[in-house]
Amino acid sequence: MKVRRSDRLIDMTSYFLQNPHKLVSLTYFAKRYESAKSSISEDLAIIKRTFVNRGIGVLETIPGAAGGARFIPSVAEDEAETFIWEMAAELSQESRLLPGGYVYLSDLLGNPEVLRHVGRLIAREYMGRQVDAIMTVATKGVPIAQSVAYYLNAPFVIVRRDSKITEGSTVSVNYVSGSSQRIEKMELSKRSLQRGSHVLIVDDFMKGGGTVNGMKSMIKEFDSEVVGITVFAETSVGENGRRLVDDYTSLLNVDNVNELNQTIHVSSGNYLEKVFGKRTDRQIQ
Amino acid sequence: MKVRRSDRLIDMTSYFLQNPHKLVSLTYFAKRYESAKSSISEDLAIIKRTFVNRGIGVLETIPGAAGGARFIPSVAEDEAETFIWEMAAELSQESRLLPGGYVYLSDLLGNPEVLRHVGRLIAREYMGRQVDAIMTVATKGVPIAQSVAYYLNAPFVIVRRDSKITEGSTVSVNYVSGSSQRIEKMELSKRSLQRGSHVLIVDDFMKGGGTVNGMKSMIKEFDSEVVGITVFAETSVGENGRRLVDDYTSLLNVDNVNELNQTIHVSSGNYLEKVFGKRTDRQIQ
Repeated sequence: MKVRRSDRLIDMTSYFLQNPHKLVSLTYFAKRYESAKSSISEDLAIIKRTFVNRGIGVLETIPGAAGGARFIPSVAEDEAETFIWEMAAELSQESRLLPGGYVYLSDLLGNPEVLRHVGRLIAREYMGRQVDAIMTVATKGVPIAQSVAYYLNAPFVIVRRDSKITEGSTVSVNYVSGSSQRIEKMELSKRSLQRGSHVLIVDDFMKGGGTVNGMKSMIKEFDSEVVGITVFAETSVGENGRRLVDDYTSLLNVDNVNELNQTIHVSSGNYLEKVFGKRTDRQIQ
Repeated sequence: MKVRRSDRLIDMTSYFLQNPHKLVSLTYFAKRYESAKSSISEDLAIIKRTFVNRGIGVLETIPGAAGGARFIPSVAEDEAETFIWEMAAELSQESRLLPGGYVYLSDLLGNPEVLRHVGRLIAREYMGRQVDAIMTVATKGVPIAQSVAYYLNAPFVIVRRDSKITEGSTVSVNYVSGSSQRIEKMELSKRSLQRGSHVLIVDDFMKGGGTVNGMKSMIKEFDSEVVGITVFAETSVGENGRRLVDDYTSLLNVDNVNELNQTIHVSSGNYLEKVFGKRTDRQIQ
């Protein structure tokens, strides 16, 4: 039985959203709906237009007999901006301040709606680039890596500070913790990353940048290259301006922590400027 | 400008898929598309039919002026079965066998396509139940908890074996490790779970059931109740039949490990039987 256009549009939209970055042939859809390829082409044109108009993403269509379509998730500038400022206000709540100037983030990094936004925003930054794997360090970075992996449709790999028996043989590197200036060790399972991969580094929080630097060394050990570095929040509070990493993106910036008065101030990081060329108050200051 | 039906169907489908379990009012869509509520009602009827026909999920519609719609993701029985048997074949590869009879799973639990399936399958089991939070233990269970959280649209909370300074005050419980019979300790941040919650426990691997048992004690400490327990894989190999947990669901069952010959055999767990009432070869044996 042939399928009506309305049904096709709904099912195709669902398919694309659940299979980002995957090239689907016209033939696949033509068979699935027992419809002519010309009808499928028209459907794709409609979906493409709506996806752009609504900021859902880009539908790349490859014409010809061997052609098909690929969905690249995106996010509209105003949606990104609204989300970042909402998060800044949320993180600025004094109840989030923990002893030692740390910030309580576990509820946000365990909230699927927040993670959907974070994943889409970070994936948006790298939408035109080749990303073979997303790397993070256990345990706080994992939810962020997984969300980005969802929207880039690439696997994520987890570097660990403690060796796990269920990982098999590992490669380990030493790194200098930016905050404590101590030598630490991190490990990655040998079979979790292929040589020659293009790797995106993500993490929840960057202070001195030591952990990120360790991941850069790890990527070199696997003869792979760094595509970019993006963190949920950065802070330079208490770091005396020493920063081991210079080229990175942050969604949020913890710019003031006062443990005496129990106040914390968080503003936008450099994401909006780097991705949308938008000047934020941090630059205007 | 009024929006055409085709555009509305595409955008509404995208909205539902990105906001599972969220009640959306007719008014929201009517304003968004500057369309009459009667047109929106017709759209919802079309989407509802396609979602059911394609096994995408259930669109609950609440009639009346205060009505709306809510999308409950699901999975068709044949899709669930195909996925589980593909995973069983994948896990049965001898290259996955690690020293001590452990199984290498990190690549699968870092693969977004696998995680989308796992998340949908587990969410399917609890689709009619109230789930306020999904609980797991760091670190291997986290990707599973996050995937399930995505489809149930509920937060996930991570119990840790080591205390993290960035968690604030915690509640800790002792538990007996099923495999080693040692007393261990696990902790959960006080503010990460509200009293009186309905909690779903998930994990990657269950041997003796000690870890799951620890989480049950933890849930009791928070005056909350267990909705269910589902694990990606279970094994009773080397456990002499001792099992500290009886009512649980498993997607996969590691039923034979031979370290001498370096062979491993994995079959379907009890998921298909519990969720779809399907007898699997495990029951037929």
